[in-house]
Amino acid sequence: MKKKELLVVKLGGKILDEAETMSEFLSYFGKLDVPVLLVHGGGKQADLLLDQLGIQPKMHQGRRITDSDTLEVVTMVYAGRLNKQIVSKLQATGCNAIGLTGADANVILSEKRKAAEIDYGWAGDIIEVNISLPEYLIGNGMVPVFCALTHDGNGQLLNTNADTIASALAVAFSEKYRTHLCYAFDRKGVMLDLADEDSLIRELDYASYRDLLKSEQIADGMRPKLLNSFQALQQGVASVRIGKPLELIHQTSNYSTLQL
Amino acid sequence: MKKKELLVVKLGGKILDEAETMSEFLSYFGKLDVPVLLVHGGGKQADLLLDQLGIQPKMHQGRRITDSDTLEVVTMVYAGRLNKQIVSKLQATGCNAIGLTGADANVILSEKRKAAEIDYGWAGDIIEVNISLPEYLIGNGMVPVFCALTHDGNGQLLNTNADTIASALAVAFSEKYRTHLCYAFDRKGVMLDLADEDSLIRELDYASYRDLLKSEQIADGMRPKLLNSFQALQQGVASVRIGKPLELIHQTSNYSTLQL
Repeated sequence: MKKKELLVVKLGGKILDEAETMSEFLSYFGKLDVPVLLVHGGGKQADLLLDQLGIQPKMHQGRRITDSDTLEVVTMVYAGRLNKQIVSKLQATGCNAIGLTGADANVILSEKRKAAEIDYGWAGDIIEVNISLPEYLIGNGMVPVFCALTHDGNGQLLNTNADTIASALAVAFSEKYRTHLCYAFDRKGVMLDLADEDSLIRELDYASYRDLLKSEQIADGMRPKLLNSFQALQQGVASVRIGKPLELIHQTSNYSTLQL
Repeated sequence: MKKKELLVVKLGGKILDEAETMSEFLSYFGKLDVPVLLVHGGGKQADLLLDQLGIQPKMHQGRRITDSDTLEVVTMVYAGRLNKQIVSKLQATGCNAIGLTGADANVILSEKRKAAEIDYGWAGDIIEVNISLPEYLIGNGMVPVFCALTHDGNGQLLNTNADTIASALAVAFSEKYRTHLCYAFDRKGVMLDLADEDSLIRELDYASYRDLLKSEQIADGMRPKLLNSFQALQQGVASVRIGKPLELIHQTSNYSTLQL
C-alpha cells in the first residue's frame, strides 16, 4: 500500500519574531490539505523576557546554557505564549491545531545532557519518541504543534533543540508515512556562497554533501542542520527540505531538497 | 448501562503556590485509578510575574482585568510554567497527563466579555464545549490538564475563570459519565461560620442552600462557587464536592458534598 505523505515543518529563526510573516505563514499553513505537524523554536523572545527579568542569557558556541531561571523562562515563552498564539491563530484558519511539549502524553523522553567541559544545564537529548498520540491526532485531522521542550520522565522539563525534535518526530513517523522534513527559516536554503543570493543548491545528495564538507564550502551555522538532515534520511525520512517557509509549503522548489 | 465515574478536579487558591502541598497532591492524584480530569487556576504566580515586569495587576471586585500585557503574562504562567510543571510531575508518577488550553483542539470556545460599566479586557465567557478530544484521551487512559485559558475561534486567546471551565467540562461529560465536580482549595469546604473550624457543612442540598442564601449565612467569596455548583448539578453533574485536595481525592467525606 502506498504510504500517505506527511509534512513535518520546523519553524525557526527570525520568522518567529516577525508578527506579519508569522501570520501570513500560519494562514497558508492552516489551509494545507495534507497531514502536517509543526515544530517551533523560540526565536529571540526568550532572550527578550530574560532581559526584562534582568537575567543574562548564557550561551556557548550558539547553544543556550539552561539554568533553572532560564528553564522557567523558556517554558513560559515556548509552551505558553508562542505555542498558544500559534494554536489560536491556526484555529482561526479552520485548522484543528493542538499545542504540545514532549512531556505531554509522554511523546518525547530525553535525558539531561551530561556536564562535560561545558555544563548545558537543563538541556535534554532525546532518547525515546512515542508517537501514538500524535498519530491519532494526525489520523483524525488534527495538527500537533510542538515546542522545543521535552521531559526526563522523572518530573523534570528539559530544553531541547527544535531541529532535533522535528527530525526525531519525522523519523518516528516514517514507518507509516512518507515523511518530508521541512526546515523553514529566513534564508533561501543551503547556499554555496552566503554572499551570493543566486548560489542556492536546489538538490543535494549525500555524495555532494560529503564533497562540500571536505572542501569546507558549508557555512558553520548550516553544518549541524545538514548532519541532522542526512541522519534523518538514513533513518527513513523521504526528503529534507530547507528554505523559506512559504516556498516550502507551496512546494515551489525554490529551496534545497536533500536526499540520499 | 451504568455510567462510569469521572472526577473533574479543579485546583485553586494557595495550593498552587505551595510547592510541597502541590507535589503531595500530584503524587496521589497521579495514582488515582478512576478517570480524572484536572483544571488549574494560576494562584499568585501571574501577579508575581506581573510585578517582576513592572506591570500593575488590575482587579475589580476580585476579578482580574486582562489587558494585552496581562494576557501575555497569564498565557506564559498558566499554559507555560504551571501547566507543564504539573504535566511533567504527573508523568513522573506514571500518569499519562496532557496539558491543554481551551484553544487546543478547539475544546472551549468563548466570547470576549462585553465592556459594560467595567471593561474586563481579554476575559472570555464560555459559549461552546467540544469534548471529543478529551473524551478520547480519558477513554484511552490519559489525563487532560486544563489551564484557565480559552479562545474565540478568531485567533484571540481569552482569560477564563477556572471554576467555570471545570464546571462547563463537568456538565459536558455528564451525558456519558457519572461526573463529580471537585473544587479543591485551601479550606475544609463550605463553612457555616468561617471563624469556626468545626462548622463544616458536610451535605448541602438546593433547599438548604436557598435558606442559607436568604439568611445571608454564605460568605461573599463562596457565593459564585455555590451558584456555579448548583447550576452544574441542574445540568446533569452527579455531585459537587468542595474542600481540601487530599480529602477530596481520598473521598474521606471531610468536605462539603452538594446535591440537588
